[in-house]
Amino acid sequence: MSARLRRTRIDVGAQHINPEKHEGIMSQFGTLGIIGKQDDPAAAQTAALLVAHLRQRGHSVLLDDELHGMAADATAPRRELAERCNLVIVVGGDGTLLNAGRDLAPAGVPLLGVNQGRLGFMVDVNPLQMTETVDSILDGDYVRETRSLLSARILRDEGGAGPFLALNDVVLRNQAAIRMIEFETWHGEEFISLHRADGFIVSTPTGSTAYALSGGGPVLHPGIEAWALVPICPHTLSDRPIVVSTDRPVRLALSGGGTHDATCTMDGQVNATVRPGEIIEISRADCSLQLIHPRGYSYFNILRSKLHWGRERS
Amino acid sequence: MSARLRRTRIDVGAQHINPEKHEGIMSQFGTLGIIGKQDDPAAAQTAALLVAHLRQRGHSVLLDDELHGMAADATAPRRELAERCNLVIVVGGDGTLLNAGRDLAPAGVPLLGVNQGRLGFMVDVNPLQMTETVDSILDGDYVRETRSLLSARILRDEGGAGPFLALNDVVLRNQAAIRMIEFETWHGEEFISLHRADGFIVSTPTGSTAYALSGGGPVLHPGIEAWALVPICPHTLSDRPIVVSTDRPVRLALSGGGTHDATCTMDGQVNATVRPGEIIEISRADCSLQLIHPRGYSYFNILRSKLHWGRERS
Amino acid sequence: MSARLRRTRIDVGAQHINPEKHEGIMSQFGTLGIIGKQDDPAAAQTAALLVAHLRQRGHSVLLDDELHGMAADATAPRRELAERCNLVIVVGGDGTLLNAGRDLAPAGVPLLGVNQGRLGFMVDVNPLQMTETVDSILDGDYVRETRSLLSARILRDEGGAGPFLALNDVVLRNQAAIRMIEFETWHGEEFISLHRADGFIVSTPTGSTAYALSGGGPVLHPGIEAWALVPICPHTLSDRPIVVSTDRPVRLALSGGGTHDATCTMDGQVNATVRPGEIIEISRADCSLQLIHPRGYSYFNILRSKLHWGRERS
Amino acid sequence: MSARLRRTRIDVGAQHINPEKHEGIMSQFGTLGIIGKQDDPAAAQTAALLVAHLRQRGHSVLLDDELHGMAADATAPRRELAERCNLVIVVGGDGTLLNAGRDLAPAGVPLLGVNQGRLGFMVDVNPLQMTETVDSILDGDYVRETRSLLSARILRDEGGAGPFLALNDVVLRNQAAIRMIEFETWHGEEFISLHRADGFIVSTPTGSTAYALSGGGPVLHPGIEAWALVPICPHTLSDRPIVVSTDRPVRLALSGGGTHDATCTMDGQVNATVRPGEIIEISRADCSLQLIHPRGYSYFNILRSKLHWGRERS
Repeated sequence: MSARLRRTRIDVGAQHINPEKHEGIMSQFGTLGIIGKQDDPAAAQTAALLVAHLRQRGHSVLLDDELHGMAADATAPRRELAERCNLVIVVGGDGTLLNAGRDLAPAGVPLLGVNQGRLGFMVDVNPLQMTETVDSILDGDYVRETRSLLSARILRDEGGAGPFLALNDVVLRNQAAIRMIEFETWHGEEFISLHRADGFIVSTPTGSTAYALSGGGPVLHPGIEAWALVPICPHTLSDRPIVVSTDRPVRLALSGGGTHDATCTMDGQVNATVRPGEIIEISRADCSLQLIHPRGYSYFNILRSKLHWGRERS
Repeated sequence: MSARLRRTRIDVGAQHINPEKHEGIMSQFGTLGIIGKQDDPAAAQTAALLVAHLRQRGHSVLLDDELHGMAADATAPRRELAERCNLVIVVGGDGTLLNAGRDLAPAGVPLLGVNQGRLGFMVDVNPLQMTETVDSILDGDYVRETRSLLSARILRDEGGAGPFLALNDVVLRNQAAIRMIEFETWHGEEFISLHRADGFIVSTPTGSTAYALSGGGPVLHPGIEAWALVPICPHTLSDRPIVVSTDRPVRLALSGGGTHDATCTMDGQVNATVRPGEIIEISRADCSLQLIHPRGYSYFNILRSKLHWGRERS
Repeated sequence: MSARLRRTRIDVGAQHINPEKHEGIMSQFGTLGIIGKQDDPAAAQTAALLVAHLRQRGHSVLLDDELHGMAADATAPRRELAERCNLVIVVGGDGTLLNAGRDLAPAGVPLLGVNQGRLGFMVDVNPLQMTETVDSILDGDYVRETRSLLSARILRDEGGAGPFLALNDVVLRNQAAIRMIEFETWHGEEFISLHRADGFIVSTPTGSTAYALSGGGPVLHPGIEAWALVPICPHTLSDRPIVVSTDRPVRLALSGGGTHDATCTMDGQVNATVRPGEIIEISRADCSLQLIHPRGYSYFNILRSKLHWGRERS
Repeated sequence: MSARLRRTRIDVGAQHINPEKHEGIMSQFGTLGIIGKQDDPAAAQTAALLVAHLRQRGHSVLLDDELHGMAADATAPRRELAERCNLVIVVGGDGTLLNAGRDLAPAGVPLLGVNQGRLGFMVDVNPLQMTETVDSILDGDYVRETRSLLSARILRDEGGAGPFLALNDVVLRNQAAIRMIEFETWHGEEFISLHRADGFIVSTPTGSTAYALSGGGPVLHPGIEAWALVPICPHTLSDRPIVVSTDRPVRLALSGGGTHDATCTMDGQVNATVRPGEIIEISRADCSLQLIHPRGYSYFNILRSKLHWGRERS
């Protein structure tokens, strides 16, 4: 099977379970982790319900130690969740899952997202049906999807920064309001263009429905292996989004003549400074994120719901 | 090598030539064809210069019988060009190459485009350097690029139409001016959305710089195996372009309730009528087009030039 | 008061009523007309309820003779409604109001729109609160708003067509699917540009939330005296919407070299053919449309509701 | 004449000169000022040529004291230029003219822009024809155009900041990269919407071809009295540019719940901090800017040239 197909296939979990092997164990997911939105009592409450339910099913459960108000004996740092869990349930919004995804993807632990009452692009289990849905999934009835990540490094004459992982996007942005930055872009060894703009977004398919969409980029189905390159408020009107392959790095080189620093931001959550003359090199990360969805998952269903398709100006 | 890589690789021709085998023959391209823009005296003149030059080099040359004012003994129908030529040189614009590409891609004959003084996205040999460039290419110094095609069929209860090949795009459009059409879109077995719009474009990477770009779609680098789905003047403002994989067909189903026919157009050149309730099924064609470029070819160079990047509002 | 202010002012009706003068008459609106969506039983039913209610209030009521299934003695042609009514109530959607507006604006009869359960941009009386709302309005508690119209003529060597009124927009469009048209645009005596595109929209503020919005145009608040000029799928990416003053005509000249006719469409409802070399001249109409809204009317309220602001990707 | 007409009229200077009265004076523009791009030797050199030429014509000339390397006896602060000059010539780019315009508009001194070899939207005298063009203008052969300005104040519980003048735009922007800001917008007493975005642009017609165009806004012809309201990378895809009248203020209220400051920037040149809960109030300035253009000036000519209309993808 080619690399591409492996990355983009949606496996229906149930087809991959051998019922015989299933006997006598509670599920293929022995030890479960729970991560919740930080400082959010509602997420902590949902997490507490989950813990009780999962322990009753006989699972061993580890809680992220940043979860609000949990008993200390059940909590562990993320590093330990990554090592010991077969599945981590994330309670919160897409932002919480992005954060958890960057921490857990390298260990290959799959994630399941429970939203807080408002459907997310990735956190798609409704809390009202949470226990039934989780039971079905733990019984092997689920859809597994693979999302690719970006790895970004800032190249400097001495030292440098990174690598930083990103599930959504790596963004180069002007720091001072309004002042346009100038930078060159490269795809592998090929020069793309010199841009003057507020910034530039390199987005995975996962990130294509986040900031890149606000910037005018296309939606990329997670089943394609590509990145969207989206200039932010470009000076040149024909400087349009480009979709490129991920088999070679994209480089953004902040023009050396300027005197203003810029910012490199991963998933809108992690920031690093970029100085004139420095280069951001963005490659496909070695790891990828496994997302677990309830049976019946459809990417387009979520897209229709989130973008209110069919309902506008109706 | 995976299917994806094979399709998107840019081969530098010179690396694939065995110099020993090259001895004693004029080039790997023994018989050459020439196709020119129809009813265009300038294209015919350029073609005549080419014929003389190529024959002097010892090539056997076949001329498309639609070329203006050529001696009948040298001309042949496209079917024969497809069977007998090792390379066909197209003199004209991108439209001429699109037309030739649909005819010759199934036979696997590579095409080289000579423009008429204005660089095209695909016809990138400048007529002023034509003989030198063609000589170098025939000597084995070239870049080969593969472009994928679409195959469209109109599904009806009885009969149906197609398959039609398209190198750029398959477009569903309203016939009567202004009157919006309603249709559903599918990617494989997954429902995408119900649209109300002037129409819908399914574009290859090659077509992404043509009509789809005017419709607000992204540029797709030819090195990715994907299609852009671009609604034309959609009623719903969040009905944005989507990029999907080509491993399953895209289907456009014109809503059955309406009483208005729509039009299905391939590459802006071939039209078919679509009636309410009928479906356009668009798949990756079995064949693909081989484009030959001069050494030093860069997709982004052409993009920068055609989109006037860096020069606007400067 | 300047012409501009007169056109854009929102008058609160109640401030203009002298209660003394009000005595003894049922309201300032003595004779009322009703126009409904054609061939629509639901609209006819709502109209019948309205008739009964209005007659009970002592109004004389005239029904549009295109209304479905009404007793013939109460109906009249639109010309007569225009002459005799002090207010016409339109039951249907924005399309029905556009149609009625072009017919009644020249006579200066104000319109009130009752929607069919789905809020329109102009038909903003909810049928569930219809009688209470209509009573308040007839008692003088309303907001009056003035909407400007376009007047279009097709200039030919001999004859010509028009003038045609339009409340939303005048659109020049290609007839054959896909085939781009070429045309020049002028604002008064000033040349704007040569365009290659699918077409071109000249939109009033009222039309700016209709087809022009789908084409990428801005929303124009009805309180400004301006038109949006919006190219449809333009070949040149920097060919962006322009907003111009209405104090001189806009002219669209279909290039003479072509052999293809184009279509000129008013409000998406009235069509005329434009031949190569002909010119569409679009001026501010002499008349304007008076829209009556319930108290509390706010343009932005309707905009927020119709465009689902604040709810998308939330 | 109505306020609107006065603001938008383009006067052809020559029509307003009485030739008789012209005798014996060097021109209606007795004392001239010169402002040049700061720290720019080329601008200073052009300015020096101008000084010599203008003195030879008998004009009294005052130089901006920020001009590079000028003899001190000829220089004066801008305040003095504003008081004493009948016309100020600006040598530089549009940025230099924006800066000079905010300083000189309140005094009503007209400006003439000489570019540095690259046509600007406002600096439209070519330096190669500078002396001839300036002579014609001083002889009374010119076009006068009026551009409106914005006046912005930041409203706080105590104190506040401003008023600040802006010729192009007033922009509210997030400070930290990426972090979206939330704010409400109002037109007079009418609530427009709650936005989540990178920021928001309130642009004059003059500014509509600057940052607002990069943000997706329409071009507003200087002849209309309106502002474009353009959200920057809005979260909600239907949050589109709106064009509103200038007869009442626009208010932007940064949501009070947040903990992040934002920035308010005038013309991309003057910055002020906005704290959660504070309001930016933007009104039509009392003054307006008089721009002098050479005979034959056409706004659309400049637009075509700056936006490369007709040349793209050609």
